[in-house]
Amino acid sequence: MSDGNKAVLKVGIAGLGTVGGGVIKILNNHEDLLAARCGRPMQVTAVCARNRNVDRGFSVDGMAWYDNPVDLASDPNVDVVVELIGGSDGPAFALAQAALNEGKPFVTANKALIAQHGEGLAALAAANDAPLRFEAAVAGGIPIIKALSEGLSANAISRVYGILNGTCNYILSVMEETGAPFEDILADAQKLGYAEADPTFDVDGIDAAHKLAILSSVAFGASLNMDAMYTQGIRNITPLDISFSAELGYKIKLMGITTIGDEGVKQRVHPCLVSLQTAIAHVNDVNNAVVVEGEPIGQTVYQGPGAGEGPTASAVVADLCDVARGATNALLPAPQKPPTTYIDMDGHQARYYVRLTVADEPGVMADITAALRDEDLSIESLVQRSHAAGEPASVVLVTHETNETKILRSIERIAGLDFIAAAPSYIRIENL
Amino acid sequence: MSDGNKAVLKVGIAGLGTVGGGVIKILNNHEDLLAARCGRPMQVTAVCARNRNVDRGFSVDGMAWYDNPVDLASDPNVDVVVELIGGSDGPAFALAQAALNEGKPFVTANKALIAQHGEGLAALAAANDAPLRFEAAVAGGIPIIKALSEGLSANAISRVYGILNGTCNYILSVMEETGAPFEDILADAQKLGYAEADPTFDVDGIDAAHKLAILSSVAFGASLNMDAMYTQGIRNITPLDISFSAELGYKIKLMGITTIGDEGVKQRVHPCLVSLQTAIAHVNDVNNAVVVEGEPIGQTVYQGPGAGEGPTASAVVADLCDVARGATNALLPAPQKPPTTYIDMDGHQARYYVRLTVADEPGVMADITAALRDEDLSIESLVQRSHAAGEPASVVLVTHETNETKILRSIERIAGLDFIAAAPSYIRIENL
Repeated sequence: MSDGNKAVLKVGIAGLGTVGGGVIKILNNHEDLLAARCGRPMQVTAVCARNRNVDRGFSVDGMAWYDNPVDLASDPNVDVVVELIGGSDGPAFALAQAALNEGKPFVTANKALIAQHGEGLAALAAANDAPLRFEAAVAGGIPIIKALSEGLSANAISRVYGILNGTCNYILSVMEETGAPFEDILADAQKLGYAEADPTFDVDGIDAAHKLAILSSVAFGASLNMDAMYTQGIRNITPLDISFSAELGYKIKLMGITTIGDEGVKQRVHPCLVSLQTAIAHVNDVNNAVVVEGEPIGQTVYQGPGAGEGPTASAVVADLCDVARGATNALLPAPQKPPTTYIDMDGHQARYYVRLTVADEPGVMADITAALRDEDLSIESLVQRSHAAGEPASVVLVTHETNETKILRSIERIAGLDFIAAAPSYIRIENL
Repeated sequence: MSDGNKAVLKVGIAGLGTVGGGVIKILNNHEDLLAARCGRPMQVTAVCARNRNVDRGFSVDGMAWYDNPVDLASDPNVDVVVELIGGSDGPAFALAQAALNEGKPFVTANKALIAQHGEGLAALAAANDAPLRFEAAVAGGIPIIKALSEGLSANAISRVYGILNGTCNYILSVMEETGAPFEDILADAQKLGYAEADPTFDVDGIDAAHKLAILSSVAFGASLNMDAMYTQGIRNITPLDISFSAELGYKIKLMGITTIGDEGVKQRVHPCLVSLQTAIAHVNDVNNAVVVEGEPIGQTVYQGPGAGEGPTASAVVADLCDVARGATNALLPAPQKPPTTYIDMDGHQARYYVRLTVADEPGVMADITAALRDEDLSIESLVQRSHAAGEPASVVLVTHETNETKILRSIERIAGLDFIAAAPSYIRIENL
């Protein structure tokens, strides 16, 4: 190792919220350990945040202070820029460009930024010979970006899937435990700090979609493409769905799934019924899990805390350690020419869980089964719960494998039948 | 990236058995993918094996052939040496020294070599500025060495444990499924190629102990120390133990567990009762799993195939990719001065499962419970199965937390009681 390599790595951090504070705590608490592991010390020399005069539980004395994040990039006393501001555009994007244009390594926890602008930033990183690192952007503390881009680099990856959003997994876990409805658990999660005041990004699947787009790119070398992403959240999942699923041998999980085949890449985020026999069905609360399938390795599984100060900061500091050790390998592939072909859900093949709310009258089953028969759908199992006379009944059916077009057409047809008392709902059953 | 870096990486491989063949297949089948990921192509330029004239399913034409592995190291047409011969000493060790002395990166799947000679080799690697890589030595395809040494490098690791031997996990899984005894399943496993003709290394825990010693060193920076290792295999586990454990809510797994605390490092390999509520209880067949606990990340879990051609070769090629990309960071720490303090099992605290075979006569329970009381041991639960009159009965008891000294003394005392019809057995219950 050259002497130059043993110089202090001077770190500039933009954003001193939970994760930024966590990073500074690790650099302070594990100073000697990190120096030993990396062969050189690290030191935070400059920071940027909205307000200097806040008690953060750590001191920013001796660090240069900037009001404008972009100024961090040009500070000659900063070797590597850490972006923890958030948001796909605005100051985060401006800082990424400025740092890479200066030829400085850029480390971020910002999934939206990478999902939206990763290709351009990767090109900029390559042009300036500067590493672009984002381990913390996907699955929090789990080193899944490193596993895919380095640990599994001998493999042709065919499928990557997992539980990528801790908030949704927490809500679904608590719904299962308590039987309470989505809205109540969400409100509790907001009070506990497990969900944002505006929960859209989490509960509508957008956060998981950002992470899945990044996984597609790192695993398959695919073009980053948030437009070619089927995204459906968990707002419509009811306690009834959870209890019927359990009766049928499944759990409901919000999954992100990306696959590559001859026709292209398909990426989708939606609730799934997953068999209780799978490991992923037992990943609960705010934990994340990612399953990677490749040739020749087969299947490997990575589990851990998907969010929070410690885990996310751990991933950011791991990136800093890589930079300190001189890592230069690209985590994102160069932009694809022509861009990767993505396929949509039209021809998607699956088994489906369908829940109907029906008036208590004769002939209901005959009409439902006729509608399914006309679409060539066959039923694998059917559950009807006992109900008070005169009250609407819940009927749940599980289809044999069919496709998205047929199931949607059947459901539309059934929804128009006289005795249907509420909009039918359906959830895809995933073969894992 | 400099032009020099884009030159072909010339690979020399010693050992063309299952794993060696797997490595060559990956380098052939994924040639373009690997070149794209690493920024340069890789090519096998030289090999060494016992017999040149064997049909291996791939051609060695165009590769230099050596009868003596050490000669690979001095071939100027070899940039990196891959050792897949096996054995902790002899040609494998000689080749490792020769390669590192030449300043050439050395990649191995050999856990015995690293566990026995890793410190000396790490010092040699540092002195010659040559990477020493051994991802394939622990947990087959799972990139656990990379996770510990890079992905989790921000963390102070406190405990690492897991299922590290696929053969034992397979035998225990099949014993559980079929109720057949150890010897029968071992014989079947030998026929299927899941166990060696001489199964000692696997079933007596030695293979797992080698892997655990490596994990202690990579995770804690501890001195490699195979002498300070409590090792007990699975030969004494009976179908009765498995069914009693299930009744009590546990599975039996051969675990490797290493912990670090104020008093030192404790490393041990032995069968454990693990709660059915834990993820690791559901890792079956030849799969491995490793759990890592650290601050601030908390717990992360890594699962996958622990052995076999594809997974092991995947790990070897991942190391080659790291070398191709110019990685130089040390995976093993420099030898510790003074050496790490290790602690033994004397003060080990645990709950214990104890199985007794007793003659069917009055007063048995009174005598057993008196023996336990005299050692201050309290019983958490007790199971006695119905049995034919006059036949010996099995009694299983679970103690509250106690220590190794007390439990061993109690068992010795109980073993001497008149009505004891077979040697008592015990298994530690692990809190995970």
